[in-house]
Amino acid sequence: MGKARDAYEKLILHWKETATLESCAAVLGWDRETYMPKAAAAHRAEQLRSLSGIAHDRNIDPRVGDWLGECESSELVGDVISVEAVNIREIRRSYDKKINLPRSFVEELTRATSLAHQAWAEAREASKFSIFQPCLESIVRLKREYIGLQGGDDAPYDTLLDDFEPNASVAEIDEVFTDLSNELLPLIKEVRESSKQPTTSVLAGRFARDGQRSFGEAVAGAIGFDFDKGRLDTVLHPFCTGLGPADTRITTRWDEGNFASAFFGIIHEAGHGLYQQGLASEHWGTPMGDAVSLGIHESQSRLWENIICRGRPFWEYFYPKLQSSFPEQLGAVTQNRFLQAINHVELSLIRVEADEATYNLHIIIRFEIEQRLVTGALSVADIPEYWNQKYEERLGVQVPNDASGCLQDVHWAMGGIGYFPTYTLGNLYAAQFYDQAKKDLPDLEDQLAQGEYRQLLNWFRTKIHQEGMRFSARALVERITGKPLSHKFLVEYLRDKYTELYAL
Amino acid sequence: MGKARDAYEKLILHWKETATLESCAAVLGWDRETYMPKAAAAHRAEQLRSLSGIAHDRNIDPRVGDWLGECESSELVGDVISVEAVNIREIRRSYDKKINLPRSFVEELTRATSLAHQAWAEAREASKFSIFQPCLESIVRLKREYIGLQGGDDAPYDTLLDDFEPNASVAEIDEVFTDLSNELLPLIKEVRESSKQPTTSVLAGRFARDGQRSFGEAVAGAIGFDFDKGRLDTVLHPFCTGLGPADTRITTRWDEGNFASAFFGIIHEAGHGLYQQGLASEHWGTPMGDAVSLGIHESQSRLWENIICRGRPFWEYFYPKLQSSFPEQLGAVTQNRFLQAINHVELSLIRVEADEATYNLHIIIRFEIEQRLVTGALSVADIPEYWNQKYEERLGVQVPNDASGCLQDVHWAMGGIGYFPTYTLGNLYAAQFYDQAKKDLPDLEDQLAQGEYRQLLNWFRTKIHQEGMRFSARALVERITGKPLSHKFLVEYLRDKYTELYAL
Repeated sequence: MGKARDAYEKLILHWKETATLESCAAVLGWDRETYMPKAAAAHRAEQLRSLSGIAHDRNIDPRVGDWLGECESSELVGDVISVEAVNIREIRRSYDKKINLPRSFVEELTRATSLAHQAWAEAREASKFSIFQPCLESIVRLKREYIGLQGGDDAPYDTLLDDFEPNASVAEIDEVFTDLSNELLPLIKEVRESSKQPTTSVLAGRFARDGQRSFGEAVAGAIGFDFDKGRLDTVLHPFCTGLGPADTRITTRWDEGNFASAFFGIIHEAGHGLYQQGLASEHWGTPMGDAVSLGIHESQSRLWENIICRGRPFWEYFYPKLQSSFPEQLGAVTQNRFLQAINHVELSLIRVEADEATYNLHIIIRFEIEQRLVTGALSVADIPEYWNQKYEERLGVQVPNDASGCLQDVHWAMGGIGYFPTYTLGNLYAAQFYDQAKKDLPDLEDQLAQGEYRQLLNWFRTKIHQEGMRFSARALVERITGKPLSHKFLVEYLRDKYTELYAL
Repeated sequence: MGKARDAYEKLILHWKETATLESCAAVLGWDRETYMPKAAAAHRAEQLRSLSGIAHDRNIDPRVGDWLGECESSELVGDVISVEAVNIREIRRSYDKKINLPRSFVEELTRATSLAHQAWAEAREASKFSIFQPCLESIVRLKREYIGLQGGDDAPYDTLLDDFEPNASVAEIDEVFTDLSNELLPLIKEVRESSKQPTTSVLAGRFARDGQRSFGEAVAGAIGFDFDKGRLDTVLHPFCTGLGPADTRITTRWDEGNFASAFFGIIHEAGHGLYQQGLASEHWGTPMGDAVSLGIHESQSRLWENIICRGRPFWEYFYPKLQSSFPEQLGAVTQNRFLQAINHVELSLIRVEADEATYNLHIIIRFEIEQRLVTGALSVADIPEYWNQKYEERLGVQVPNDASGCLQDVHWAMGGIGYFPTYTLGNLYAAQFYDQAKKDLPDLEDQLAQGEYRQLLNWFRTKIHQEGMRFSARALVERITGKPLSHKFLVEYLRDKYTELYAL
């Protein structure tokens, strides 16, 4: 046991040091999106390449394999959900994937994505997919090479998915997405056909950026985001990033003609931030101090953004405050009309602006495109046409240009093929968790109506954040809710909400 | 030759990669001063420790010694000012210094300076030198140990100086500083006794931060600072930092009650920034793409801050624009009165607030103290008394407390003994370069009066920036001006300026 314990301590020290280096790269990544001068992009790519190369060498250090071997044949893994066993299991998963990748491949992928990011931004600005196309072709080629290196040719898309939602499979996701789609489409139809439609013009007006910022920061702070350990900045494509155990940065973009855009964006990222800030800092840099999966991460952002902050109880408390911040714009708008307007269901072009119901249709289209890209059934050059066709079919909207179409999202430029499904998984998890939270905290909605979020946050802190990677996403859902993942909770939540708002 | 060329290529590749890593640390350092949440400080220290450890290991990699040996016995060093010979010479200098330092020493110095920084901040807050004294004693002891490790016991202060102003010597600096002091003291006396004194109250008023920022950025841009390759942010202690070949960041602090403070600060940092942006980007990460010395760096910041932007021709063009930016505050102030006010000569306590003439007296006192500390002629405990006595003698001011006296600067807490002289060297270089520039560009002052700075910048670009470390500071001065470094140019420049402004 002494020898295994010794190997374990060395393994953890080594892993934490690598995490420290990776957190340096996170600072550079954050800066690239927020403040970096444009012309610095090429050198930033070099910097990130260099750091990722060093981190990669550390990740595949043969001593890691030796230490793991020593630990795995010891009592340390006796209790499979002990801190040690979880760390050993997850470091093994990561190690086994990483040793399959030559350093040259890792550096090439890093460089390709850095350059692609710049090209994507330009392409989007010019609304011209062809500017981005060669970079995306490189990325798709590298992703297929990646699948080959991981021995994943039999289940190519699962191999990519695994990097974002460990242990998930196309088969499983396909089933729940199909069930969801089958119930969502008629629900959306009912909502669209309801004679009671919101007056979205109540949200019109000019909402000064400073006022938006103070209100957004006040709400993020109220739900528990700690600004002593984080901050909010302005970017083109909002995200949340953890740069260290006490350094979580959220970002947003501002639209002075639309209060909802930045506000719900801020809360979304603050939801991610609450997960980051809730991770066990004593386990920082190890799997026990890391998030379960992107789907679970997204469940936290979606919960706060949608279920809480688009809900009636939340605005019972905050609507008068919002009216005081924007008396000219909202003084004469009743809470009810405001609530209807921020929950307007609409067939639209832009994923990040979509409502809770149609949002999932945007995801399902991307999920289909990605699967086809990976197998080669769809070429990169054909993305715009395929995209536009699917948007017309499913959402009934005409895509006027690439910027509002297939260039709207940054994910592919980041190499994030297999990432999109985690958004809808997040919606599903969130609804299922919230259903359970209401059972566990019977006066929860009264608390929300009083601006009181500590018990709910604490429920998540204890059941999810502090547990790190102890359980897989699937196991966590079953453990917390007593039931496997199902589309039913999300559908029920949406049906209840719209029944009231749209008088279905 | 093939073998040496091969060794050279490997050396350069290795050195550039280390520079890339060091530039990652520069990003983290910039973020720490600008945007990092307070609670993240401990992890940021870990991140920087990790990066500097990796860079140090690379810097003392024995292969560097092997490659250097191969290069040094080859034709590559035949022409001593060829790109290759310069890179080889300077990498050798750096390598030979770094391999003399055991890791334990480097770590002890790092620990001592980080403790000292804290103690200095506390001591300054409490205005009590005794709080800082033990830490400064450790630093002085370590600096003497450093001198021993570098084999510099015969010329102890020169050894420290060399880290900031390579190849400079006490003897040489002492001579020029003494000459300077001998001529400055009577000049300052004349100025102080002149019956024509500026009305500094013309600068009073409230100068809104946004207005200060736009004017400062406009001027920085006009003199050539490229905001596509850089930016300006707000900090507590302003600095300029290079994060890559196209990423130079300047910083400032704002004082709404004092227009001059941020403005000249911005131009000072922009002057450093122009040097950074003018370095040969194809040589980035090697000595040929690096600055000659801190003194030469400072010559660039001082030139733009003082000689150009406190000069009459500059304000011929910009004063009407400044008045339009602040009509209430400056509308009724004539250009002449404004010019007198921003060039007010005053015997004062604080170095960073001193005017162009008296500034150098502050430096000379520190230079004397440092030399005595290093040889042991002055003990750390006796600094306050010595300091206060010299301030009374030279500047005729009574130092009321340690905070306004020997605790005002952070440099010693950072281990920067030998750094101060580079400030006055910068002033001397700047005046000597400017004298030559006026000869080479006969209508220079007309150009300045028309807001035209390209020819002057280009003169510096060609003669200094693009040359990297090809020449030592001393050689560069002689090469550009045809004369060795002399106090005469600075004295003449100041005498001309004050003769006019103070009607001497």
